[in-house]
Amino acid sequence: MSSTRKIGLAVAQLGPIHLADSRESVVQRLLAMMREAKARQADFVVFPELALTTFFPRYWMEEAEAVDRFFEKTMPGPATQPLFDEAKKLGIGFYLGYAELTPKGRRFNTAILVDPSANIVGKYRKVHLPGHSDHKPDAPFQHLEKKFFEVGNLGFGVWDTTGVKMGMCICNDRRWPETYRVMALQSAEIVVLGYNTPSHNIHWDEPAHLRTSTHLISLQANAYQNGLWVAAAAKCGREDGFHMIGNSVIVAPTGEIVARTLTEADEVIATVADLGIGELFRQHVFNFAKHRRPEHYGLITERTGAGEPLPRPVGDD
Amino acid sequence: MSSTRKIGLAVAQLGPIHLADSRESVVQRLLAMMREAKARQADFVVFPELALTTFFPRYWMEEAEAVDRFFEKTMPGPATQPLFDEAKKLGIGFYLGYAELTPKGRRFNTAILVDPSANIVGKYRKVHLPGHSDHKPDAPFQHLEKKFFEVGNLGFGVWDTTGVKMGMCICNDRRWPETYRVMALQSAEIVVLGYNTPSHNIHWDEPAHLRTSTHLISLQANAYQNGLWVAAAAKCGREDGFHMIGNSVIVAPTGEIVARTLTEADEVIATVADLGIGELFRQHVFNFAKHRRPEHYGLITERTGAGEPLPRPVGDD
Repeated sequence: MSSTRKIGLAVAQLGPIHLADSRESVVQRLLAMMREAKARQADFVVFPELALTTFFPRYWMEEAEAVDRFFEKTMPGPATQPLFDEAKKLGIGFYLGYAELTPKGRRFNTAILVDPSANIVGKYRKVHLPGHSDHKPDAPFQHLEKKFFEVGNLGFGVWDTTGVKMGMCICNDRRWPETYRVMALQSAEIVVLGYNTPSHNIHWDEPAHLRTSTHLISLQANAYQNGLWVAAAAKCGREDGFHMIGNSVIVAPTGEIVARTLTEADEVIATVADLGIGELFRQHVFNFAKHRRPEHYGLITERTGAGEPLPRPVGDD
Repeated sequence: MSSTRKIGLAVAQLGPIHLADSRESVVQRLLAMMREAKARQADFVVFPELALTTFFPRYWMEEAEAVDRFFEKTMPGPATQPLFDEAKKLGIGFYLGYAELTPKGRRFNTAILVDPSANIVGKYRKVHLPGHSDHKPDAPFQHLEKKFFEVGNLGFGVWDTTGVKMGMCICNDRRWPETYRVMALQSAEIVVLGYNTPSHNIHWDEPAHLRTSTHLISLQANAYQNGLWVAAAAKCGREDGFHMIGNSVIVAPTGEIVARTLTEADEVIATVADLGIGELFRQHVFNFAKHRRPEHYGLITERTGAGEPLPRPVGDD
C-alpha cells in the first residue's frame, strides 16, 4: 500500500464566527491556519463552507439584507485578497466556501479551488440545498438555504491541481452518494468540502448524536466506495449561542478516519495522503469499467422522488 | 421516532458448510434457525447467499461439474421443500440465496423473497459479480463468480410482502451505492441480503480488518442515505480451511447497527424494525422529490468506467 504519488493534505476547522465578527478578523484566523498547515507540510488546505461570516441562513431576513451583509461581490475581494497573497507566497493551494453574488445578481452557496500560484482553477456551486424557504417563527432557528441560494448550476467538477485530480462539494452534498460518484467517474482522487451543520434538527426530534455519526459514516463509506480521499472542514461550536457540530476529518480510501479534530475551535489537522491506496481499490474491487452495470441504474436519473416499484420479470428464462 | 408499522426482522447467519456436507444437513440447520427466528417474534428471516452449499466459486472446475454439484434446477426442489413447508406452517417469510440453473441452462447467483404463505413473490439475480473468470493457479484460492455466473438480468426489484416494501441484493452488491438507490427510488423500506466474503483478498495485500470495516460502513451509510433498514446474513467461518468474515448485522435507517452476530457459527439475531424511523428521514433530509437533482447525475448512467474530467463553466454568470 505505497506509491510515489503523495500530497500533504490539511483541514482547517473554524470555531464560531459571531455576527459581530468582521471578515478581516476571520481572514486573520484563516491565515494563521494556512501558515500552520504549510509548516506541517501541507500542499493543500481545506477551509469550511461559508467561511467568512456566521452561518447566516439561520436568521430570517430579506434577501437584500443578506446580500448586503453576507455575500461576496468579487473573489478575491478587499477582505479576502490577503488569503491569495499568502497562499502564493507559501505555495499552498486551498478550498474556500463563501456566499457568492454574481455579476447578474444571482446568489449561490459556492466554493473555489485555488492552486499554489493563487489562481482560481475551479468553482462549485452547492447542488443539494437543505432546509426551507419559508419563515418558521416557532422554530428555535431557521435553515433558509432554499431562500437565500439558487441550486448550483455548474455540476460536480474535477480539476487537476497540486498534481492531483480534485473534486469539490459542500456540506449537505456529502450525504448524497451521487455527489461522490459523479466525481469518481471523472477520476477524482480527492474530494474536499466544508460544512456548517447545526447540532439540532428543527424538523423532528432527531437524537443529537446522529448529526455527527451520520456525517462520519457518509464520508467514510463514500470515500471507500469511490476509492478516494475525503477531507472535510467544519465551522463549529456556538455562533451567538447556536451550536454546530465539529468532527472535521480526513478519510482514506479504506474508509478509515486518519485525522480528526478534537475541539470545536480553530484547529488544523494534516496527513500525507498516499494516492496509490485509492488506485488499488479502483483497480480491483471498484474497477468501475469491469464491474459497474449502468443498464440497471436507470432510475437514478429517470426519477427524482421515490415512486412505485417497477414490475419485474419472474426470471424463468 | 415511533410508528404503528413494525416488523419482526431476523437474520440467520450460517457457520461453515464444508464440501462433504449434504444439502439436507444444511436445510436442517436453516430450519432450526427459522424456528428460532419465529420464536423470537420475527415475521421475516434472512438467510445467506449461496446458502445450500459451500462457497464453491473458490474452486477451479468446469462449469458442467459446478452445475452438477452446486446448482439448483428447481426451487423449491426436493432438498429445499421442507423450508417452504415450515415457513408456511410458521407463517414466516424468508430470503434465500442459491445457485440457479434456469430451464434454458443459464446460471445465476440468485436470491428469492418468499412470503409467509410460502409463495415466491420476488427473484433477484446478482448484478455486481466480483472476482475473475480465469484460473489463477498461484492464488491461495479462486473467486470465480465471473466464470460460473452471468450478470443478473432482472434489475433491483422491490416487492410488497409481510406488509412492507422489501428489496434484495447479494453480497458484493452491498458495496455499490447504486444498488440501494435504485431500490429506494422504488420506495423500499427494507433491503435484505446474504454474503460470503473471504477474509483475504487474493488481488493485493489488503489488511484483513478492512474486509469487515468496509462491509459495515457500506451497510450503515447506505441504510442512512436511503432511509431504510438493512439486514445482512453471512455465511462465515472456515469452510474446509478457507475463512470468511462474519459480522451479520441489522442496521437502522439512522445508520446504527442494532443487532450483530458475535460468532462465526450458526446464529440468529433479531429486532423489531420500526418503519416510521425510515419515513422520518425520507420526509426530511432525504426527501428525494424535494432535494435530488438528477440533472447533475447524468454520468452515473452515461459512463461505466472512470474517464476524464468534464469541462466546467467558470461560473461568471
